[in-house]
Amino acid sequence: MYILHIANKNYSSWSLRPWILLRQLDIAFDEEMHPFQADIQAQREQFLAFSPSAKVPVLQDGQTVVWDSLAIAEYLAEAHAGVWPDDRAARAWARAASCEMHSGFAHLRERCTMNCAVRARPKTVTAPLQADIERINTLFNEGLSRFGGPFLGGATFTAVDAMFAPVIFRIQTYGLPMQGAAADYVARMLALSGMQQWYAQALQEREIDEAHEQDVGRYSDIIADERQK
Amino acid sequence: MYILHIANKNYSSWSLRPWILLRQLDIAFDEEMHPFQADIQAQREQFLAFSPSAKVPVLQDGQTVVWDSLAIAEYLAEAHAGVWPDDRAARAWARAASCEMHSGFAHLRERCTMNCAVRARPKTVTAPLQADIERINTLFNEGLSRFGGPFLGGATFTAVDAMFAPVIFRIQTYGLPMQGAAADYVARMLALSGMQQWYAQALQEREIDEAHEQDVGRYSDIIADERQK
Repeated sequence: MYILHIANKNYSSWSLRPWILLRQLDIAFDEEMHPFQADIQAQREQFLAFSPSAKVPVLQDGQTVVWDSLAIAEYLAEAHAGVWPDDRAARAWARAASCEMHSGFAHLRERCTMNCAVRARPKTVTAPLQADIERINTLFNEGLSRFGGPFLGGATFTAVDAMFAPVIFRIQTYGLPMQGAAADYVARMLALSGMQQWYAQALQEREIDEAHEQDVGRYSDIIADERQK
Repeated sequence: MYILHIANKNYSSWSLRPWILLRQLDIAFDEEMHPFQADIQAQREQFLAFSPSAKVPVLQDGQTVVWDSLAIAEYLAEAHAGVWPDDRAARAWARAASCEMHSGFAHLRERCTMNCAVRARPKTVTAPLQADIERINTLFNEGLSRFGGPFLGGATFTAVDAMFAPVIFRIQTYGLPMQGAAADYVARMLALSGMQQWYAQALQEREIDEAHEQDVGRYSDIIADERQK
């Protein structure tokens, strides 16, 4: 059985990627939750017990340890059908879009940090943030139109949808504007059983990480919090 | 024939990755050089003509466009032997290490920007930079020891070596300290015919990008420049 090591569902965008991929593809796995800690050095030492980079997510498969969200997708693709689109052109596009997400969108990631529970509105949409939002719209609409939808790489949920799943929650949290088919895609993603399960569990978490909470308020006005007090 | 779109060999670390992979695996390709421009908006418009993200590198294969260094490696792996290690455990490690490089090492990348021609010494080795350097040492020594060398994933040059190739030039430029087998690996990489060819061509480039040149002096003292004046 695979073991997936993750951090808080409310905050850990990178953890969501392999979790939703495994979940939507019906691949069995156990999950181990390692909450973020206020003491960064203590967290680092605790995470090093299962993660060579001291980061989440990590997939453990017997003796094999895979310590990155995209590397986990490729590892799973070797053993399970459906991780990437079957069509070669769609697969090439899906991997390039996934890689662009993996190394890019720095402004979106810094200024619209993932916090599933909160609703907020950016105080200022800077030009680089606006460019990131426009690029997300372009990518979503391009994938949906080129490969026929309803998912980015075509008919089924694949790793490229998983790689952008954290962006879906950011769009909901910050009310980011989506155009055309991209808006329908965001609604479709939020309605997936796996996304709903992650969201419900995020709301139930009692481990509050102040640093992550403060990241929201730094750049945005908080207008709601869906967690029960 | 593949067309690989790249930017200046002296500066473009991401361009080096697919270039050295194709070159060391003896896969035929044409290259198209698009020098960085002082006017960022003009550069963006020029790069958009071949790159959906306005970034390099881009691999063009007929109608298929792959716009990221790691996605290019995966695309090539579907059509050519030897892109990743044959051994499954080595391949999982190689992909995780490649992904860690692809999305991480922010301090190393910012403070020791790639400039093949220059020799410089960091003014200050900050704690985060030191942590990045130590992590590179750990990764190199771990790969070499676990899979037997002389390359990171075992007996042959694969995509994980290509993903770290820009770091090899950074180590040379900034004199970063490498321990044990990792030091020998750096020397071995610098001696590869593909690395020597890239380096020679970087020295010959006449397109000087002031922004990239200034990035070196911001954090380091320049002690030499191997380009002929």
